Amino acid sequence: MPDKPLTPLLDRIASPADLKGLPVSKLRQVADELRAETIYAVSQTGGHLGAGLGVVELTVAIHAIFDTPHDKLIWDVSHQCYPHKILTGRRDRMNTIRQKDGLSGFTKRSESPYDPFGAAHSSTSISAALGFAVARDLGGAPDHGIGDCIAVIGDGAMSAGMAFEAMNNAGHLGKRLIVILNDNEMSIAPPVGALSSYLSRLYAGEPYQEFKAAAKGAVSLLPPPFQEGARRAKEMLKGMTVGGTMFEELGFSYVGPIDGHDMDQITQVLRTVHDRASGPVLIHAITKKGKGYGPAEERDDRGHATAKFDVPTGKQHKAPSNAPSYTSVFGKTLTKLGETDDKIVAVTAAMPDGTGVDIFGARFPGRTFDVGIAEQHGVTFSAGLAAGGMRPFCAIYSTFLQRGYDQVVHDVAIQRLPVRFMIDRAGLVGADGATHAGSFDIAYLANLPGFTVMAPADEAELVNMVATAQMIDDGPSAVRYPRGSGVGIELPEEPTPLEIGKGRIVIEGKRVALLSLGPRLAHAEKAAEMLGAKGIAPTVADARFVKPLDEELILGLARDHEVLITIEEGAIGGFGSHVAQLLAENGCFDDGLKYRSMVLPDIFIDQATPDDMYRIAGLTAEDIVEKVQAALGLRTLDSKRA
Amino acid sequence: MPDKPLTPLLDRIASPADLKGLPVSKLRQVADELRAETIYAVSQTGGHLGAGLGVVELTVAIHAIFDTPHDKLIWDVSHQCYPHKILTGRRDRMNTIRQKDGLSGFTKRSESPYDPFGAAHSSTSISAALGFAVARDLGGAPDHGIGDCIAVIGDGAMSAGMAFEAMNNAGHLGKRLIVILNDNEMSIAPPVGALSSYLSRLYAGEPYQEFKAAAKGAVSLLPPPFQEGARRAKEMLKGMTVGGTMFEELGFSYVGPIDGHDMDQITQVLRTVHDRASGPVLIHAITKKGKGYGPAEERDDRGHATAKFDVPTGKQHKAPSNAPSYTSVFGKTLTKLGETDDKIVAVTAAMPDGTGVDIFGARFPGRTFDVGIAEQHGVTFSAGLAAGGMRPFCAIYSTFLQRGYDQVVHDVAIQRLPVRFMIDRAGLVGADGATHAGSFDIAYLANLPGFTVMAPADEAELVNMVATAQMIDDGPSAVRYPRGSGVGIELPEEPTPLEIGKGRIVIEGKRVALLSLGPRLAHAEKAAEMLGAKGIAPTVADARFVKPLDEELILGLARDHEVLITIEEGAIGGFGSHVAQLLAENGCFDDGLKYRSMVLPDIFIDQATPDDMYRIAGLTAEDIVEKVQAALGLRTLDSKRA
Repeated sequence: MPDKPLTPLLDRIASPADLKGLPVSKLRQVADELRAETIYAVSQTGGHLGAGLGVVELTVAIHAIFDTPHDKLIWDVSHQCYPHKILTGRRDRMNTIRQKDGLSGFTKRSESPYDPFGAAHSSTSISAALGFAVARDLGGAPDHGIGDCIAVIGDGAMSAGMAFEAMNNAGHLGKRLIVILNDNEMSIAPPVGALSSYLSRLYAGEPYQEFKAAAKGAVSLLPPPFQEGARRAKEMLKGMTVGGTMFEELGFSYVGPIDGHDMDQITQVLRTVHDRASGPVLIHAITKKGKGYGPAEERDDRGHATAKFDVPTGKQHKAPSNAPSYTSVFGKTLTKLGETDDKIVAVTAAMPDGTGVDIFGARFPGRTFDVGIAEQHGVTFSAGLAAGGMRPFCAIYSTFLQRGYDQVVHDVAIQRLPVRFMIDRAGLVGADGATHAGSFDIAYLANLPGFTVMAPADEAELVNMVATAQMIDDGPSAVRYPRGSGVGIELPEEPTPLEIGKGRIVIEGKRVALLSLGPRLAHAEKAAEMLGAKGIAPTVADARFVKPLDEELILGLARDHEVLITIEEGAIGGFGSHVAQLLAENGCFDDGLKYRSMVLPDIFIDQATPDDMYRIAGLTAEDIVEKVQAALGLRTLDSKRA
Repeated sequence: MPDKPLTPLLDRIASPADLKGLPVSKLRQVADELRAETIYAVSQTGGHLGAGLGVVELTVAIHAIFDTPHDKLIWDVSHQCYPHKILTGRRDRMNTIRQKDGLSGFTKRSESPYDPFGAAHSSTSISAALGFAVARDLGGAPDHGIGDCIAVIGDGAMSAGMAFEAMNNAGHLGKRLIVILNDNEMSIAPPVGALSSYLSRLYAGEPYQEFKAAAKGAVSLLPPPFQEGARRAKEMLKGMTVGGTMFEELGFSYVGPIDGHDMDQITQVLRTVHDRASGPVLIHAITKKGKGYGPAEERDDRGHATAKFDVPTGKQHKAPSNAPSYTSVFGKTLTKLGETDDKIVAVTAAMPDGTGVDIFGARFPGRTFDVGIAEQHGVTFSAGLAAGGMRPFCAIYSTFLQRGYDQVVHDVAIQRLPVRFMIDRAGLVGADGATHAGSFDIAYLANLPGFTVMAPADEAELVNMVATAQMIDDGPSAVRYPRGSGVGIELPEEPTPLEIGKGRIVIEGKRVALLSLGPRLAHAEKAAEMLGAKGIAPTVADARFVKPLDEELILGLARDHEVLITIEEGAIGGFGSHVAQLLAENGCFDDGLKYRSMVLPDIFIDQATPDDMYRIAGLTAEDIVEKVQAALGLRTLDSKRA
């Protein structure tokens, strides 16, 4: 383990108040120490590194010049919040980050008054900051009051439609609002889209010394507030800065580009904006993701996320996995299918690696589309591809597909267009916590007419479900599967389509039927084993399909068993609800079927290991056993949580 | 009834092919006749008028110059599609528009090959057109093949983030794609936001003759394809046109502004773009909503939507209503509450009239925010307002709230911020059909932890539920209510908060319990009356709350009755599913409770009257009676549908 870095000045900063009045040279030293501390902290725990390293100077400067938490500082996505957490009273708990009962990996309102608005999904910060700014001017009085409202947003996040909507509204309202565009030419993957090219042109070929002059010049000429008014200020800024027309057209004063690692420059610009801005201002800061840590800078993703690592070398300590990830199984299967089906195209919203679309993309670059952080567009673009005779596989995480929900309903489902949704990170996801849980997709997709919705019990099933989706040309389909490694089962040589709407009996038993959807199947099987030891031998079935339901299988299970329990990795309203409706319509309850439905509980579950999260959720094999015993009126296990 | 207008030339146009080769003077005549025909047609049926009148010339010109349906013409939102429908073989069915078994009021794939991509929600057209363009270049071969891909989108729709996402992606991909920005300075309400100001500046003070020269000049200088390449074409265009920098920065060639009612100009520009464009082109056409029909032009909304009307005067034939609309009841109640609670603010996404927010806005303009067509931003902006100590009422139609679903989950629910969602148009909505149905909100909100979800049975209940929402400061809440008039019940003098999570028994009966959520209550009461005549006297209860459920009430109903039936105006996964889960967990099924859940069926229901739609949905009083009889094993009514 490397020694903890020496951080003599940082050690004296208990809160942002201690930064006030420090000269720039000292702020620079705080930043250097904070960078070393951040690298050290993440090396011990794993987590998000590159984004934080890119904003160390900005973090110090903002807290030095603005009056947080009275001033509201909102980090977009907040992967970059680690230095902010260290500075705002959470340094001693950084070793708990992303762990059960520890700090969140993101900003979180319940964690600190310095986190006035939590985040994890992209592009929400400007909307939230504008809400605070309007509340301020209307006399809203939350804890700590409201002063300046500052959103720090990356260039990738800025490309999402939501950020544009917020800029459009903020420019119209004209309230004092500060947006810092943290332009590191990276989201998680390299950014795509025309906006990215535009931003690059804003500083293409301009050496930093010129930026500096431009930025200084611009802000020094900003008139004092109320002296000449916002309109004139804006005009003068426009004349002095090197670009930013697009932002100016949206009603923002544009300042920049500035060097986001030059403390002298940042502090001057922030000070001036602090003292003189009257309307919405956009500060365009050029930063480097992973800045100041070689191994991060050298990685393709600039050290976006990392396991625990060795500081001198950057070598990560990753536990080897015995089974391939669902993500890679999807990517490889799609690639195999793509060899013989030239109508297959893949769509991702800025997550080529995370979704496995990169695997398909390496083989078929011309049929792979990264639309950027733009789920709404990505879904309807896929619908257009389908209407145009292609077979689009639209790979979006469960939690992010929520951003394209209306497009799924309006453009895909109502038109019965054969878009295949590949929904990774379904269910509880672990260290990313509640904001990334894929809890609701079963409920929000399975009630859409004409949809086929599947969930594989293991990675071999996933292979076949991808092939099933390929064959469904008369309407939309979805496969939802979890984060992480499969169960280690052998994969089929050839992906083989399943019969639509047919589940399978995995274990024949009696009295009790466990009907599982998705990878809880292994836990149902374990529960069956445990129950077997108690003289109860349940039937275990794998539903495979939420929609269409295997009515014959389910009604048969109801007929032949005293107890029927559904198990799924999703919230109420999904699989269990569809089964209950089928049972009710067929009068199965009338005769006293002991029906139970095990779903995610009605709470947002904080970060922990997935196993811990499912324990909290009450969806383990032990929970199934207890549920069965209770339904049968037997004495239940001693509570395992006692 | 006015005489049908004389349309000698239009009468000879059976399909767009008949426009080919007509000189501009004849196209102008077609347009004039088409305008008269459109006014006449809508006067007979009611429907959307202003938007169509604004694009008569564009419609004729596009169909004359492009080769539809091989070329894909996609109307954004498609309120403006009536002239298009008349020209594309549907003229003889215009008298059926927006009626049961008639033409849809929107474009619809199943209706005509000239509608390659249906719409009704805003801002989807560019994404869809880009999908077609990419499919074309990859060899996609739908019916009629794929030629040019043309999106016609209004300035209001262009302000939505989704359109920006699509432009950003299209500019990056560089495919040949034609976007016609139909700039009439109106969405349904006057547009808001900085983009709107920007567009205005593009033609502020420029008389049309100058536009004309600029546009002609620009396009005549476009180099032939493959001769000098797209880059050079773009540069030259940039030099020649009067503005459009923002679009150019996104990678589009900008042509315009042109006069969208000048056939000479439109045809020349379209012809040139048709012959010479190589990448994405944006044509900025200035039009006038309601153009050419005085009574429409003079209305504030430029004749957006209308009942049947008298053509010479524009006087609408509206059936008087005996009861106020839910919309106005909400607006007036919120205004009353706002008098004594200065923390109340109202947020609408471009629908001040439709949501009743205009009533609050007239009294409290400084506390009313129209964010434009920007549901994602609108929701998170509301979350920011709540975090800033305000009491935001975010009024968005059920179907449009789908566009902000992730923001509801991620920014509102996870943070437990007290945003009040006022969800109008919940349930089936009538003439707007499936795209506007509010079917899914109960399901997609009620499984979010910490949410309070209510549905009033009538307008008096709505008054009290708005007051209830006002009081809920510790988490989000939602009230969902239908389109149209209330039941005519007296309104409470003072809005009075309800006890959270408490329903009510409306009729005490036995054997059978009908548990209704929302305005189906009247039908449940009618069913009870019908059943009473058969010797069955059901209990009727109004749940009021989906979440939290009134567990005591529901378990009591289950205990005391042989049959329990839930009734709601929503899809599976909602109220009935939550009730079923409660019953299952409490072992109510174990003893043979005859439980049934009446929900919207698993089909998208086309336009009709709401009553007809609920008949198709099987949610009438007669359906309830049948359901009860079947559950009791009694001989059911003769099928009313036989």
